[in-house]
Amino acid sequence: MASIVLLSVKQTAQTKAKRCLGSRLKGLAGAGGPSATFLPEREWLSKGLNLRFMSHGTAGRSAAGTTRRGALAFSGAAAVTAAAVVGFLANANHFQRAEMATTIPQKAKKKKEEEEEEGDIAQRCRGFMSVPVTDISVLEKRTDEMSTKMEMLIMETQAEFCKALEEVDGGTFKVDKWQRKEGGGGISCVMQDGKVFEKAGVNVSVVFGYLTEEAAKQMRSRGKVLKGKDGKLPFCAMGVSSVIHPKNPHIPTVHFNYRYFEIEEEDGSKQWWFGGGTDLTPVYIDREDAFLFHNTLKEACDKHHPKYYADFKKWCDRYFYVRHRGETRGIGGIFFDDLDSPNQEEVFSFIKSCARTVVPCYLPIVKKHLNDSFTQEEKDWQQVRRGRYVEFNLVYDRGVKFGLATPGSRIESILMSLPLTARWEFMHEPGKGSREAEMLEVLRNPKEWV
Amino acid sequence: MASIVLLSVKQTAQTKAKRCLGSRLKGLAGAGGPSATFLPEREWLSKGLNLRFMSHGTAGRSAAGTTRRGALAFSGAAAVTAAAVVGFLANANHFQRAEMATTIPQKAKKKKEEEEEEGDIAQRCRGFMSVPVTDISVLEKRTDEMSTKMEMLIMETQAEFCKALEEVDGGTFKVDKWQRKEGGGGISCVMQDGKVFEKAGVNVSVVFGYLTEEAAKQMRSRGKVLKGKDGKLPFCAMGVSSVIHPKNPHIPTVHFNYRYFEIEEEDGSKQWWFGGGTDLTPVYIDREDAFLFHNTLKEACDKHHPKYYADFKKWCDRYFYVRHRGETRGIGGIFFDDLDSPNQEEVFSFIKSCARTVVPCYLPIVKKHLNDSFTQEEKDWQQVRRGRYVEFNLVYDRGVKFGLATPGSRIESILMSLPLTARWEFMHEPGKGSREAEMLEVLRNPKEWV
Repeated sequence: MASIVLLSVKQTAQTKAKRCLGSRLKGLAGAGGPSATFLPEREWLSKGLNLRFMSHGTAGRSAAGTTRRGALAFSGAAAVTAAAVVGFLANANHFQRAEMATTIPQKAKKKKEEEEEEGDIAQRCRGFMSVPVTDISVLEKRTDEMSTKMEMLIMETQAEFCKALEEVDGGTFKVDKWQRKEGGGGISCVMQDGKVFEKAGVNVSVVFGYLTEEAAKQMRSRGKVLKGKDGKLPFCAMGVSSVIHPKNPHIPTVHFNYRYFEIEEEDGSKQWWFGGGTDLTPVYIDREDAFLFHNTLKEACDKHHPKYYADFKKWCDRYFYVRHRGETRGIGGIFFDDLDSPNQEEVFSFIKSCARTVVPCYLPIVKKHLNDSFTQEEKDWQQVRRGRYVEFNLVYDRGVKFGLATPGSRIESILMSLPLTARWEFMHEPGKGSREAEMLEVLRNPKEWV
Repeated sequence: MASIVLLSVKQTAQTKAKRCLGSRLKGLAGAGGPSATFLPEREWLSKGLNLRFMSHGTAGRSAAGTTRRGALAFSGAAAVTAAAVVGFLANANHFQRAEMATTIPQKAKKKKEEEEEEGDIAQRCRGFMSVPVTDISVLEKRTDEMSTKMEMLIMETQAEFCKALEEVDGGTFKVDKWQRKEGGGGISCVMQDGKVFEKAGVNVSVVFGYLTEEAAKQMRSRGKVLKGKDGKLPFCAMGVSSVIHPKNPHIPTVHFNYRYFEIEEEDGSKQWWFGGGTDLTPVYIDREDAFLFHNTLKEACDKHHPKYYADFKKWCDRYFYVRHRGETRGIGGIFFDDLDSPNQEEVFSFIKSCARTVVPCYLPIVKKHLNDSFTQEEKDWQQVRRGRYVEFNLVYDRGVKFGLATPGSRIESILMSLPLTARWEFMHEPGKGSREAEMLEVLRNPKEWV
């Protein structure tokens, strides 16, 4: 599966990249943009992004930040920035027409947002849930390295998502910064027993050290053999991952994870790849929710490659499969691993698009069902589904298995994905024609939602 | 570990066997026996056994049954029966002294019980929770085969344990007889949401068919290579297993499993081995309970080999270890696998002793705490411990892993061991000096209880 996807990426992704990034920028136009009223999730896309920018240092930006950004744009190292600028210019006249009357001209506003996004690191860190794992001074010295860009993205994604959840719940995330003896650490944000969320976890981890060749092989789903110096390979792995279990059985559980790996081989060359995905696990089928969720992901994928959504949707259904039950865990979404082409900047740009769909994918669904009433039977069915969630995570999930088998792992952060409560009823079988049976039918035969 | 145990067995078990079986028969003396008032669990040992015999066909026994038993005793094939008779005779005068005044002389009573135990198969089956997996007519034709003896033992153990639990709970087990397409089937007895038990499952399975050499290797913990005809090996596996999760956090969870495997190699020779164990998972430490539980097991082991208890207790602590938590699942008990020496009858006799300790190990503890009051905090701690139970079963348990990976497995019966409800709290850490911390301390540093 991975190789099919990667082949098709190699053929067309490079030529599509600029156009795709351009269309992502279209989304940034906000309420005034031509697509803003097209679908409800559009609102969230722009709202989510505005929130992100506002929370990550709009207030009190220093002139130094702008200067740094300027230096970066000409360094030639930050290809993603360059592509974004090209995309912005290609679509600028489009926005100018709609935004002529606003106080800040659209072009200047866009430029300002771009600057903020790629601007002063210390400034951007102020909006995070915690200081990053890597020292800010180190990040500032390595702004052009992918590990820095990715660490900033995962920290931003964590903050954006946590703040959106806090807003809807009224509760506050507990922030737990931890260190890994062997190298690196993480930031676990957990809200437990909130008003809306039974358990919400958003975790960032940045770990590094040495891997054996065998462990390095296991880390890649394609199992590529990597040669290390004396059998050991320096590695760096980072990612943001989250699982949200709401109380109300009419609000689905969501999971996402975006990650980056770097491994140095014997000859000093670096192997790198990205992986990730976002998927939904409802307790009952709501076709409108399923469409919104999948369509938001599809739009993010389509900006980067016409085959991404279809391929990664299939991969997701196949990955989140509870084999011993013959059921998928939920209604899927996207999932991919070992993504390393057409080039690092293009893949990172895709990862960024995915990370930015997290809020618009999910929050509209939460808000829609916030006040739905439910029965004890519906709550029980949710608990049974939670049991299946636990089964998948403990028996099949590669990340959990790798984590549990890795010495020095942060167990609580790995198992943060488990629900607060779950239930195993012997021989549970929903009645014919019931909404529970409808849910099972979908899990047994994954559907196309868009 | 296994090889150490087996070595010591080979040295001494054969010579000890007759004496040990004799002392097991001592236990059969009932309330009048000299050891009946020695320890509280003794009462249960005899009560349990009386219950078992009464429920398995005391009423309405036919003359045919007795005749059949007589035929068997002289066939020479049922070595266990012969050994039991020797043991009985060796200890007979011991009982006669105490039982002179009873209506039925002790010697005759013993003989009657022996007859019932090894008597008419159809008659014994009447006390079971269901008809056995194998047709009664087939069992009757193969009374001298180990597979028949073991199937009868596991059916008896299931019935004895279920009836003891029903008596204390007031509820009734639902009996679910199932068939395995590939060969064999099972009987799952489940009581859910009872007065005392949140979920109680007692499962018997008898399966047969063909294994690949790889699968056969995986089935043995020592991974012995077995040669099959065209790579395929006819096998037969059977066992009784149970997990009981009570509602009251002061009543511990118990688990036991006794199993027998037979595999036919290319040259027609049969490889066979037994495995099993009983272990306790309390929510809070009660030293008296821990002593009673371990001491009952130790007494059963000591009848067969002086090293069994110590070795199998260690094996149990090592097996039920949640590695990623650095905790044992509970306070252990005994566990062993691949037991195939000194000979089939001796090992079966040990398995029988173990199976018969199930009721006296556990029921006194249940009764003792039946009316203990508990707080919501204690209930929550129970739920957290249940979560760890789920972690062990899904991540490490060989039986579960083998079951989930085997096509045609009865998933509901395999996962019957999971509790009705469980809880995962992020970073749960009991207060210093609390009873929860005391429990954790024991799980982190397994103790000797007898």
